[in-house]
Amino acid sequence: MAKPFLPPGFRFHPTDVELVWYYLKRKVIGKSMQFEAISEVELYKFSPWELPEKSCLHAKDLEWYFFCPRDRKYPNGIRTNRATDIGYWKATGRDRTVMHNSCIVGMKKTLIFHVGKPPKGNRTDWVMYEYRLESKELADAGYS
Amino acid sequence: MAKPFLPPGFRFHPTDVELVWYYLKRKVIGKSMQFEAISEVELYKFSPWELPEKSCLHAKDLEWYFFCPRDRKYPNGIRTNRATDIGYWKATGRDRTVMHNSCIVGMKKTLIFHVGKPPKGNRTDWVMYEYRLESKELADAGYS
Repeated sequence: MAKPFLPPGFRFHPTDVELVWYYLKRKVIGKSMQFEAISEVELYKFSPWELPEKSCLHAKDLEWYFFCPRDRKYPNGIRTNRATDIGYWKATGRDRTVMHNSCIVGMKKTLIFHVGKPPKGNRTDWVMYEYRLESKELADAGYS
Repeated sequence: MAKPFLPPGFRFHPTDVELVWYYLKRKVIGKSMQFEAISEVELYKFSPWELPEKSCLHAKDLEWYFFCPRDRKYPNGIRTNRATDIGYWKATGRDRTVMHNSCIVGMKKTLIFHVGKPPKGNRTDWVMYEYRLESKELADAGYS
């Protein structure tokens, strides 16, 4: 995949729908993307401040985009493991829907990085938005 | 000038410095730009809602970018004429500086569209940011 050449003033500022319904869907169904806008990183192996340099675009911006394989807390469980070496990402608020053409195509979860061990970690200013596809919609799309 | 092909998620979201110190400076000194990101429009010949379709990029976004030749209120005066057929753009607040490498490279004025004649026009939700180069900085740059 080529890295896009961007003239001054042009940046990667995707909408929630573009993130979910173009990038994440293509990643999940293995469809190729024209440009390498989002790199795959095992987010929980790193501290938040180590992540910007792993972004393929705009390391100087204040937002970075990654694909991350989901890691289960227990082999047979459905809980996602969001612990890192020095802390953990903790969900805050409700998951929000990502709507496209009146359909829910994905969900968006807000996570805040805490240093330490739960439940006693100290909250930081690092925020992550985790997007996931809603599988019904993906099934409807028929993988074609 | 070519219009850039933009993959999903990529948009024109210039910073104030990019607007002033790349685009406006190049326009003023007549240096070519690689892409047609900003069209030249005589803004005051139109109502705000007629402007989006005149943008060369992102007519569906909620921000549009234009170059506009300055129009003096009186032939020998320095006041800028910001009246349109059905109303006028009125400055609000103080002009803000655009800083680059600790230097003021431009100024940014906020204008709000009012329908009617001053001073009795009715305020609307249409906001314009007017950028101008600071001539000292442009002189320092030496036009090279």
